[in-house]
Amino acid sequence: MKLDPKTDLTFTRKINAPKELLWECWTTPKHIKNFFVPKPHSIDACEIDLRVGGKFNTTMNVEGNLMENEGVILEVIDGERLVFTDTYSEGWKPAADPFMTAIVEFADDGKGGTIYTATARHRSPEARQRHEDMGFYDGWGTVAAQLEEYAQSLK
Amino acid sequence: MKLDPKTDLTFTRKINAPKELLWECWTTPKHIKNFFVPKPHSIDACEIDLRVGGKFNTTMNVEGNLMENEGVILEVIDGERLVFTDTYSEGWKPAADPFMTAIVEFADDGKGGTIYTATARHRSPEARQRHEDMGFYDGWGTVAAQLEEYAQSLK
Repeated sequence: MKLDPKTDLTFTRKINAPKELLWECWTTPKHIKNFFVPKPHSIDACEIDLRVGGKFNTTMNVEGNLMENEGVILEVIDGERLVFTDTYSEGWKPAADPFMTAIVEFADDGKGGTIYTATARHRSPEARQRHEDMGFYDGWGTVAAQLEEYAQSLK
Repeated sequence: MKLDPKTDLTFTRKINAPKELLWECWTTPKHIKNFFVPKPHSIDACEIDLRVGGKFNTTMNVEGNLMENEGVILEVIDGERLVFTDTYSEGWKPAADPFMTAIVEFADDGKGGTIYTATARHRSPEARQRHEDMGFYDGWGTVAAQLEEYAQSLK
């Protein structure tokens, strides 16, 4: 995949847990709730239909305010790559003003850990900048740390 | 699939050719060139990578003006359903200002013909109206007639 620095944000880090476990965390609602947003924010509800075109919906609780996020899964490479977006809701209904497309990738590091890459693609440089200003690196970094801690608790 | 009359355009017609043949026409560049746009407009180039996330690119020739359309395939149900859009180009790069998502469906009519349904989903009622004003029904109807004539010539 060729990234475009003008419109994409991405980071890679090592996570000390096997990629199969991280994949399970990323694709199962009961696990998603444990790491998907930086605490103390939380996920009150999550629905995932793990197939191309299937829903990827979350309800985020930010200080008591509920934010419903509807999305779909664009691509599933089992254990390796999950692509989802708010660009569509189920049935390929286009969203009026989509924000981003997320690509989460998992590669075996050869030592029982995972090279974890999270990428957000945007429609414009302005949307990319807005996402960076919202705290993309801190936020997704915190999520990665929470994912590592949670996955380790499952082992 | 639940359609939304405020943002979707759709039509269904019977085509007197088997659905397997229509599927081949819709998914093969050399065939696409023979029916995809109302004549005398033409398709000068076409690239299709028939998989989820694969490219669906066409170069349209409208009175000598070349229009490049980059898109991707969102869903492939072999012989039955093709979904593609200009919302992304290859690699899930979001387009700045996408226009529509097309869903083409083929069902056996039990008599050797096909029930053919073409749907265009849009991001807003305004985009839907613009597409209708551009001549969606006439245009896609003409394309269906060209497809029927071309498919019959292959039998």
